[in-house]
Amino acid sequence: MSKPGIGAVSVKEISEDGISPKEDLLVMEEPLEIRVGYGQAGERHQKSLAVTMRTPGHDLELALGFLYSEGVLEETGDLLSIKHCEDIGRQEERDNVVRAELSEQLIPDFEKLKRNFFVSSSCGICGKTTIDAVRTVCNPLQSDIVINRVVIYALIKKLESSQPLFGVTGGLHAAGLFDAKGKLLLLREDIGRHNAVDKILGAAFEKKMLPLADNILLLSGRAGFELIQKALRAGIPVVAAVGAPSGLAVSLAKEFDLTLIGFLRNNKFNVYSGESRIQ
Amino acid sequence: MSKPGIGAVSVKEISEDGISPKEDLLVMEEPLEIRVGYGQAGERHQKSLAVTMRTPGHDLELALGFLYSEGVLEETGDLLSIKHCEDIGRQEERDNVVRAELSEQLIPDFEKLKRNFFVSSSCGICGKTTIDAVRTVCNPLQSDIVINRVVIYALIKKLESSQPLFGVTGGLHAAGLFDAKGKLLLLREDIGRHNAVDKILGAAFEKKMLPLADNILLLSGRAGFELIQKALRAGIPVVAAVGAPSGLAVSLAKEFDLTLIGFLRNNKFNVYSGESRIQ
Repeated sequence: MSKPGIGAVSVKEISEDGISPKEDLLVMEEPLEIRVGYGQAGERHQKSLAVTMRTPGHDLELALGFLYSEGVLEETGDLLSIKHCEDIGRQEERDNVVRAELSEQLIPDFEKLKRNFFVSSSCGICGKTTIDAVRTVCNPLQSDIVINRVVIYALIKKLESSQPLFGVTGGLHAAGLFDAKGKLLLLREDIGRHNAVDKILGAAFEKKMLPLADNILLLSGRAGFELIQKALRAGIPVVAAVGAPSGLAVSLAKEFDLTLIGFLRNNKFNVYSGESRIQ
Repeated sequence: MSKPGIGAVSVKEISEDGISPKEDLLVMEEPLEIRVGYGQAGERHQKSLAVTMRTPGHDLELALGFLYSEGVLEETGDLLSIKHCEDIGRQEERDNVVRAELSEQLIPDFEKLKRNFFVSSSCGICGKTTIDAVRTVCNPLQSDIVINRVVIYALIKKLESSQPLFGVTGGLHAAGLFDAKGKLLLLREDIGRHNAVDKILGAAFEKKMLPLADNILLLSGRAGFELIQKALRAGIPVVAAVGAPSGLAVSLAKEFDLTLIGFLRNNKFNVYSGESRIQ
């Protein structure tokens, strides 16, 4: 197996039938450090913004999606280049550090970034203030798509039949981006569900597809608050999850009138918000 | 439904049979801010260390588990007290901020904490350096427990039959702590898998059960690197997961000779490391 993101390991399977040695394929997990270069030519600075445990593959997209999601990048003009750091010692370390060069005009607000969307002041935080904070980085949704329910039923099979790594490891989250007719446009996998969505957003950023006003985002697992936040950031009007949404995810979706679908399986689903987009 | 951590919401179920309104129970998700008070009497300082999205309930345990896991707390003497912040405006905000008072002798290394176990230097990071970093905060395992495979088969049912919230929402991770005979000692649930484990560690810290050298940790989902790291920190020799482990989780388990079990279901499991503890 030579796919990136997968590794083989020898294991013992133990059952009522006894012990049998076999080979198992595991999903890889490695740290990725995301750095930015910024400032005027001649006096560029570097800052390390995050380390995330991720499944190797689509690293540049992951970094771009993270930077877009956190509000560091807004449009393609903000980015000069992005690549793995070449000035680092060993190859395996080089593979785990990505540096994005920001345009000279862009001065990132590192303090704001540190707060990571959360209003952490002396007056405390709660679901409401968390949702209010999202409003400062996400525009209202602008979309008039309507989606047939049969299209929604069919999303899962399309995701599953295209998931290259999950089938062999059973250890990955997937995120799929579809158009309103249910055509799969992008599929990304990762051990972290937020990383899978960041990879989608980063790919969309690179391909100049943003905002994704006519698209559906499908999540292979549960829909938590932070995933809905990322969808809103990218202007995605419809999010469908195979699993359950959280209470705060539903509140956030309602605030922005995002169509939130949960428990999508066996030609059936629940709509928690924004049902007017479903035919 | 008045359980903490759960809320009711009206949804539309859409299927081939049409649209039916129904009530759905959702798992709650709210931010929790973890603060510490430190310094000499008369000149105490406060620092906000983290905000984590969590399912309300067992908040103090979650904060304690986080602080222990990150190396801020080592033993019960390090902690003077812990409670929700009372000097904050509204009740809903107060519920989401916890402050731990550290003993006067304890001066936390906030810089080290910021690095969050990761060696983020100019020489880059990789799986190997990440594992090396764990060694600086985790002692070698000291345990001579041996566990019958039949005990391991039975763990799942014990966890499932005791999971109060998952059954009604389908949206939670669980972590269970068992003794070597398979008796369930602690069970915690959360929308975040790392939070469920932190709640276990925090409860063990409070009950002075650490290190957990004769225990098994059962995870309802996958076993990623960070969960194995938390188990090692608490001295837990056996981790069993219903889902798949990651490649780095297996590498870390092998390094510390931790018994790592994956795909535990239907009286069958895989052993990835430390099989000598299984009978």
